[in-house]
Amino acid sequence: MADEVKLFRTWSSPFALRIVWALKLKGVEFETILEDLANKSSLLLENNPVHKKVPVLVHNGRSVCESFVILEYIDETWTNGHPLFSKDPYEKAEARFWAKFGDEMLWLSVRGILLGNEAEQEEAKVQASEHLKYLEEQLGGNKYFGGEAIGFLDLAVGWMANLVSVLEEITGHGLIEELNFPLLWKWMQDFSDAPVIKESWPPRDKLVVKFRTMRDLYLAGKI
Amino acid sequence: MADEVKLFRTWSSPFALRIVWALKLKGVEFETILEDLANKSSLLLENNPVHKKVPVLVHNGRSVCESFVILEYIDETWTNGHPLFSKDPYEKAEARFWAKFGDEMLWLSVRGILLGNEAEQEEAKVQASEHLKYLEEQLGGNKYFGGEAIGFLDLAVGWMANLVSVLEEITGHGLIEELNFPLLWKWMQDFSDAPVIKESWPPRDKLVVKFRTMRDLYLAGKI
Repeated sequence: MADEVKLFRTWSSPFALRIVWALKLKGVEFETILEDLANKSSLLLENNPVHKKVPVLVHNGRSVCESFVILEYIDETWTNGHPLFSKDPYEKAEARFWAKFGDEMLWLSVRGILLGNEAEQEEAKVQASEHLKYLEEQLGGNKYFGGEAIGFLDLAVGWMANLVSVLEEITGHGLIEELNFPLLWKWMQDFSDAPVIKESWPPRDKLVVKFRTMRDLYLAGKI
Repeated sequence: MADEVKLFRTWSSPFALRIVWALKLKGVEFETILEDLANKSSLLLENNPVHKKVPVLVHNGRSVCESFVILEYIDETWTNGHPLFSKDPYEKAEARFWAKFGDEMLWLSVRGILLGNEAEQEEAKVQASEHLKYLEEQLGGNKYFGGEAIGFLDLAVGWMANLVSVLEEITGHGLIEELNFPLLWKWMQDFSDAPVIKESWPPRDKLVVKFRTMRDLYLAGKI
C-alpha cells in the first residue's frame, strides 16, 4: 500500500515549513492542507485536539503533532531517505539541544525585537546577539549545522534564514550583519539557496505585511 | 576503557530524577554530584553554560543538558540495557508528544495550584484536570505508559507520582482521587513502587517543607 501523507499547515508558519522541508528532503510525496487559523477546519481540530495548531502530519490516518516530534517521526519512518541526524548519539544530542534552545531562547529574543517598544527592543537585541553567538560557535567550520548536508538543527532554526531579514526590514534593527556573525551569515545564504529550501519559502512581501501588521496590532494593545 | 558517567543534580529536582531513573534502569554506574542552586559549582557552570541548570550528564568528559535530550542520549548510547522507547516510530512520537505536553501544559497547571491564590488555584485545577484526563486516556489499559515496562513517558511524567500528593497535602486541593482518574491512580502506585523508582525518591517530608516554603514566599511576593 502506498503511504498516504497529509500535512496541515498555514502559508506562513515557520514551524510547519520544517515539515515541508523534511518531507521534500526525504522525497516523500504529500498532500498539503492549507489552514486559516481564524477559521480552523474540523479536520485540524480532530487531528490535533490538544493544541489545535499546525503543523499536523497525518500518515496513513494517524496524526503526529509538534514540529520536532514530527521531524523525528519522519526520520525514523523514512529511514532510506536523506538522514536528518548524525548516527552519533552525542551529535544527535547536540542537535536536539540547540533546536530546543532555538525555539525557546532565540525565538523569544527575536520576538522581543519584533513586538517590543524601543527599550524592550534594545534589551531583546542584546539577548538575541548572545543567542546567535552560541549558534555561530555551534556551526563552527561546517557548511550546515548538520555538517556537509542539511540536518535536524538546520530545519529547526531555518526560520532565521528569511525571518531575520524580514524583521530587520520592519524594525530597522540589524541583527546578523556579515561582520558580526560571518558564519551564520554564510549559512543563511547557503541554506536559503539549497533547492528544496528555496522553492518552499513563503512570499517575502506577504511576510513583511503579516509581521508588520502583527507588530502594529501588538503595540496598539489589540493582540 | 570503562565509561565515566557523572550526573549533576540537586536532591529534589524532578527533572534530574528522570536521569537517575534512566541510568539505574539501564544499569549504568554513575557518580552523583549534588549541587546547591544558591551556590552553583564552577563545574556545573562550565558544563551547562547556556542554562546553568541541573541535570547535566557528563559522559567521558562531554556534557549533555536538558533532561529529555539526556534521556534520548542515554537510550541511544546504552542500547543493550532496558529500552526507553518502543521500536515503533509512531509510539515513539506519542511518547515524545505527551512528554512535552507534561512539561508544558500539565506542569504549568500544577504549578498554578501550588503557587496560586484561591481563585487562581480553582482555575488551575480545572486545567490540570483536563490535562490529567488526556494522560488517563493515553495510559489506556497498560500498566505503564511504556506498556508492560517503564518507558520514556513514565520517566517524563514520573514527578507526578509523588509531587501530586505533596501538593495535595500543602494546598488541601485533591487532584487525583481514585474515582476521578482510576488508571492514573493505579499507575502512580505501580510506578512509585517499582524498585528502581522507589529507592530514588527524595524524602517526602523534605519535599513538603520545600514546596510549602516556596508557596509562602511566592504568595508574599518574595520570589
